[in-house]
Amino acid sequence: MRTGIWLVGARGSVATTTVVGAAALRAGMAPATGCVSMLEPFHDLPLPDFGDLVFGGHDIASTSLIKRAGELAEAGVLPLGLPDVLSLELAAADAEIRPAPSQGESGGQAAVAAAISADLTDFRDRLALDRVVVVNVSSTEPPATPHPAHASLALLRQALAGAEQVLPPSSLYAFAALESGCAFVDFTPSAGARLPALDELARERGLPYAGSDAKTGETLVKSVLAPMFARRALRVRSWSGTNLLGGGDGATLANPDHAISKNESKAMVLPAVLGHEVDGGVHIHNVPDLGDWKTAWDHITFEGFLGVRMSMQFTWNGCDSALAAPLVLDLARFAALAHQAGVVGPLPELGFFFKNPVASTEHALEAQYATLVEWARTAGAA
Amino acid sequence: MRTGIWLVGARGSVATTTVVGAAALRAGMAPATGCVSMLEPFHDLPLPDFGDLVFGGHDIASTSLIKRAGELAEAGVLPLGLPDVLSLELAAADAEIRPAPSQGESGGQAAVAAAISADLTDFRDRLALDRVVVVNVSSTEPPATPHPAHASLALLRQALAGAEQVLPPSSLYAFAALESGCAFVDFTPSAGARLPALDELARERGLPYAGSDAKTGETLVKSVLAPMFARRALRVRSWSGTNLLGGGDGATLANPDHAISKNESKAMVLPAVLGHEVDGGVHIHNVPDLGDWKTAWDHITFEGFLGVRMSMQFTWNGCDSALAAPLVLDLARFAALAHQAGVVGPLPELGFFFKNPVASTEHALEAQYATLVEWARTAGAA
Amino acid sequence: MRTGIWLVGARGSVATTTVVGAAALRAGMAPATGCVSMLEPFHDLPLPDFGDLVFGGHDIASTSLIKRAGELAEAGVLPLGLPDVLSLELAAADAEIRPAPSQGESGGQAAVAAAISADLTDFRDRLALDRVVVVNVSSTEPPATPHPAHASLALLRQALAGAEQVLPPSSLYAFAALESGCAFVDFTPSAGARLPALDELARERGLPYAGSDAKTGETLVKSVLAPMFARRALRVRSWSGTNLLGGGDGATLANPDHAISKNESKAMVLPAVLGHEVDGGVHIHNVPDLGDWKTAWDHITFEGFLGVRMSMQFTWNGCDSALAAPLVLDLARFAALAHQAGVVGPLPELGFFFKNPVASTEHALEAQYATLVEWARTAGAA
Amino acid sequence: MRTGIWLVGARGSVATTTVVGAAALRAGMAPATGCVSMLEPFHDLPLPDFGDLVFGGHDIASTSLIKRAGELAEAGVLPLGLPDVLSLELAAADAEIRPAPSQGESGGQAAVAAAISADLTDFRDRLALDRVVVVNVSSTEPPATPHPAHASLALLRQALAGAEQVLPPSSLYAFAALESGCAFVDFTPSAGARLPALDELARERGLPYAGSDAKTGETLVKSVLAPMFARRALRVRSWSGTNLLGGGDGATLANPDHAISKNESKAMVLPAVLGHEVDGGVHIHNVPDLGDWKTAWDHITFEGFLGVRMSMQFTWNGCDSALAAPLVLDLARFAALAHQAGVVGPLPELGFFFKNPVASTEHALEAQYATLVEWARTAGAA
Repeated sequence: MRTGIWLVGARGSVATTTVVGAAALRAGMAPATGCVSMLEPFHDLPLPDFGDLVFGGHDIASTSLIKRAGELAEAGVLPLGLPDVLSLELAAADAEIRPAPSQGESGGQAAVAAAISADLTDFRDRLALDRVVVVNVSSTEPPATPHPAHASLALLRQALAGAEQVLPPSSLYAFAALESGCAFVDFTPSAGARLPALDELARERGLPYAGSDAKTGETLVKSVLAPMFARRALRVRSWSGTNLLGGGDGATLANPDHAISKNESKAMVLPAVLGHEVDGGVHIHNVPDLGDWKTAWDHITFEGFLGVRMSMQFTWNGCDSALAAPLVLDLARFAALAHQAGVVGPLPELGFFFKNPVASTEHALEAQYATLVEWARTAGAA
Repeated sequence: MRTGIWLVGARGSVATTTVVGAAALRAGMAPATGCVSMLEPFHDLPLPDFGDLVFGGHDIASTSLIKRAGELAEAGVLPLGLPDVLSLELAAADAEIRPAPSQGESGGQAAVAAAISADLTDFRDRLALDRVVVVNVSSTEPPATPHPAHASLALLRQALAGAEQVLPPSSLYAFAALESGCAFVDFTPSAGARLPALDELARERGLPYAGSDAKTGETLVKSVLAPMFARRALRVRSWSGTNLLGGGDGATLANPDHAISKNESKAMVLPAVLGHEVDGGVHIHNVPDLGDWKTAWDHITFEGFLGVRMSMQFTWNGCDSALAAPLVLDLARFAALAHQAGVVGPLPELGFFFKNPVASTEHALEAQYATLVEWARTAGAA
Repeated sequence: MRTGIWLVGARGSVATTTVVGAAALRAGMAPATGCVSMLEPFHDLPLPDFGDLVFGGHDIASTSLIKRAGELAEAGVLPLGLPDVLSLELAAADAEIRPAPSQGESGGQAAVAAAISADLTDFRDRLALDRVVVVNVSSTEPPATPHPAHASLALLRQALAGAEQVLPPSSLYAFAALESGCAFVDFTPSAGARLPALDELARERGLPYAGSDAKTGETLVKSVLAPMFARRALRVRSWSGTNLLGGGDGATLANPDHAISKNESKAMVLPAVLGHEVDGGVHIHNVPDLGDWKTAWDHITFEGFLGVRMSMQFTWNGCDSALAAPLVLDLARFAALAHQAGVVGPLPELGFFFKNPVASTEHALEAQYATLVEWARTAGAA
Repeated sequence: MRTGIWLVGARGSVATTTVVGAAALRAGMAPATGCVSMLEPFHDLPLPDFGDLVFGGHDIASTSLIKRAGELAEAGVLPLGLPDVLSLELAAADAEIRPAPSQGESGGQAAVAAAISADLTDFRDRLALDRVVVVNVSSTEPPATPHPAHASLALLRQALAGAEQVLPPSSLYAFAALESGCAFVDFTPSAGARLPALDELARERGLPYAGSDAKTGETLVKSVLAPMFARRALRVRSWSGTNLLGGGDGATLANPDHAISKNESKAMVLPAVLGHEVDGGVHIHNVPDLGDWKTAWDHITFEGFLGVRMSMQFTWNGCDSALAAPLVLDLARFAALAHQAGVVGPLPELGFFFKNPVASTEHALEAQYATLVEWARTAGAA
């Protein structure tokens, strides 16, 4: 079952780490640490093997994957020497990366979507892939500007034919992916497939989609600590989170417009799990010196028996791309499973992976995990 | 359904906070923050109401509860003024506290057990209680010295008649409790009812028992974080815990013999949840200045995708008695439910509350919670 | 030597804590913890005794000091019961607090200044005070809007006679204080006396002034840690600070305009001590639940031998008013000493107390302390 | 001015990092980050240049320096590739490392000392060195067993001739160094030259010595934070330190006997600076997974105005050898300066570098730095 993974943002840190890692796993050079889909409950499911995965993608950058991988090895994200050992695999993936069509192309967004679709179809056909999953790992966008054409597929098609910018880039990719018969996963907080018109398209084409905004650090921890307080009937009063990060992500999120999308995702877990709002909030600060590493500090105040005030803090010091890359593989594998099993529309059961899961209000990690296991078993039996 | 709660260590901080808190809850003066048994899934169960709880206990100290409560209010453990408002209730509980029989009493441990039983029976009969739950909230003991008589009830009865110290104090209380028809809960890491001979006794008398070592802070957090790493296939490499605490607990645990019991309890969660040993360990340091407050710092290193090394830390700054007291109420209520429902022997389903749950190897909090909810529903329907 | 302390913002938390504390110290009810001017090197200097201090002030609020003190005792800032014991002293100070003249008063800012001066003069004369120190402990202002009249006293006097708002409130108080023959201390990052025209006025009247922005927590720690890195030739690469606070200060600083002044003060120490800029920055987040308590988290990355990257973090959990109040007493005592010794103009030697010391670029705490000790000895001998 | 640095423990991590670093600095391949003696106040002093330093030493291990350097580069302590580039320099140093004479050698400790001296003399003569500084960077020893012969040089010489183990290894090295006309520096908490008999020997031979126990992390931070509290008249109540470390040091200090020496050193700064004892203490825990990296967590409680209780915490995440190595170079350079200037006996003015400075009770870093600068200027002018 040859499965294509088409990465939007294919030369970024997450994408590069994903491609290197898949090659290393295929070669048996590393254990599948961080890969959820390799855990015991998923052992006997018809998920595509690492050996079945073929990578391609779009990017506006042109730096080669081998060069990007070398930079990541320098920064401690990848083992030194590994990129060289895997240079053939990286060259193969590199050869399948296409320049991202300019969003301002003449012919309007319909033309851009057609160009994207052409690349996707060519990738699938030429490499004889059974299916392709498109995963958006590009930069976080600002919240999408509302447009009446988002409300229905008919309106959307009509609007795309015009000169107007109707869809944000992530949604245009989702449109093109679904039009081309590919499942779509949004790894970022961008709009992606989460517009009524695109949901309609997914259903029309019989395709699944998933998202949004993979939880890789601070929010992951929140999704187990918040339930802990709830289970113990302790009343959380404030929860303040600070995220220090550098790299491209740090630079993007230093822009308040882009940070809005991310902060909205990050803020969901507490009210959903605790059932009430709390003081505090989530803040992101760009610290270029940290590069691909991020440190989050969360400070929590809570109230116990007879109103006694207590507090807890945690810091999370993680490597963003190393945390994200195995989840890209997981999501592509599960989305391929869903596609193969004929699941159509949003995949709330993949909420385990996301800060802002489509079609789900569940944010507690264990509940999400139980749902994932159950769903995968059913889908695998389909 | 009038239920007695007999506290071994009835003048300690945990016991005092429990008595004050129950009175405040009964009077509607405080919300039931920290009381698990008041959460939604347990709403319709035949648990004893706070108004049905009657307190008594043993202690070697003689300081009045009202004085102890005043000290705790000074230390910020109880709201200022609350002890005075509840002075009648505290006096009533005080009147039911008996001097702990000296363990060295002539007549040997059988005589001590008889004296304890007499107090328990008198308490139940005189106050017309439907049942009594004995909860051990005294100081942590060193690990029990093994003795052949621990192996069977017949051998135990025989040995108790002699002059030898066969049982550690916590187990002698468990013996007397079970002999008197009372359920037994060990809130500490001491041996308590966890000897084959006492299990036999519990079954003979048709009584339930639970324990050991309530999880109120560091271990509670570990019991959600360790599963998080497991669910994400991240490999924990080291987990080092340091606990700073003062108060009587700090002084007791500054004694390495006593700390052994506590550290053994605290060390269980990681191998049970992760499936392998990790570097590090748990350390307890006595800092008298901290009084009833404890601060734990845990430092965790873990490995992610392609071997990248990452780390996480947390600190927990809690008030020990405020965290413990509502759990004493919960455990007494659930143990009363079990007794009433005819459950006999160990209660592994109360593992949610314990670092070292009897008859259970489950240490992940969410799994424990699901088990608790299911068990309570069944027991409540019995 | 009867010395008046006139507090601008006399009903705020810092002012109230100052008044209560001075009364407690006078009565010998508490040790002078936190009072720098009571340390050994200052023992034999002609500083006003706590018994010589008389309090008055301006405020727009009208809540009584005894009520404010009660609230602070509830919040754990003051010992419970202390306000009641000192009610006479609080009432006396309360009687000397005047409503702050409305800044929009007819007659323009000259009239407002005259009203302030009248209150100051009345306070000094009626109570037969040897001198008065005016200390601004009101809310942080946004950075002052530049105005040509700030450049010289002549231009300023002329402009104040008009209808325009020439001076921000803190500077109008400084103007009035200096006009009335009072030393002026700015405890906040506001402009205060730091305008050329006001410096001219201070020199004309032979008065000293000091400021700005007392260092009470995060910046205090930075002022010893940054020199530590420098002394060890370790290269600081990033220093990111997050401040969580509630109370009035939290609400004020949640306003980005007001936060600018504070953040500028807080950002001074690193380049001054390290000699170069570093990544990161200082952030303030309002968390109402924290009340008068603030928690700062600083994350520092640095480079050592052969470029090895290391890091350090600290958290500071302090009570803002308790940290500030003894410094108000110190500053008033030292400013009175300066006034008495005939020191004129800015007091850079009080830089020990400030994030943004007037007329000084020294930010390392030990160097500032040595300067303070030497200066006080000289001034005391004058 | 060719200066030999003779490292006791010459194949350990600190020694290897020192040799690699000196070579890199000599070659201009790295800035002198972490080298105090390269700071501005020491610029014009007659300190030996990096190009004048020649390395030799003793070790019981036989692994080559180039192999050890390779391991350290793998562990992130040294830049990858650097050991290879400097292989000639490492080979040269390697050739000057002699097997440590067995302490149990026939002929007793006098014979061992003679063997050490012979190696030192040969090193100095053969390489035409102006002087040699012996620096002990071997493992921490347990506290020295007291012996009457420690009291005077005459008694010591007599006792060494016998069969008894009179001196711990560090002191035997100090004896041999001083006998051979070499200055001695103890980088560890071991006894080294700190016995009356050895002080006598140093004076007899006109040699300086320095020590003990370089401050590289937690204690360094304490030596600026403790003065900060003192300067602000804040009363420290408890200070609890936990050190997690792996590597050889972690393994050595996991032995409680060896940890005693280290903990005694680490405990000195607080009472010396604060003037009173505080609750808490210093703890060291071996976490093999951490390797050469150490993380310290310090938790401090303190009291402010009117008794308000506050707290502060810090974590220090450092690479032990990278922090230590530049200080080895500094100490050797300053000891060479002292030797050349004719300074005799202990060097309290190097206390800046040590947890337990010889002949000094000053533990505040800034005061130590001022002393160092002044002393170096004087010694340099001699």
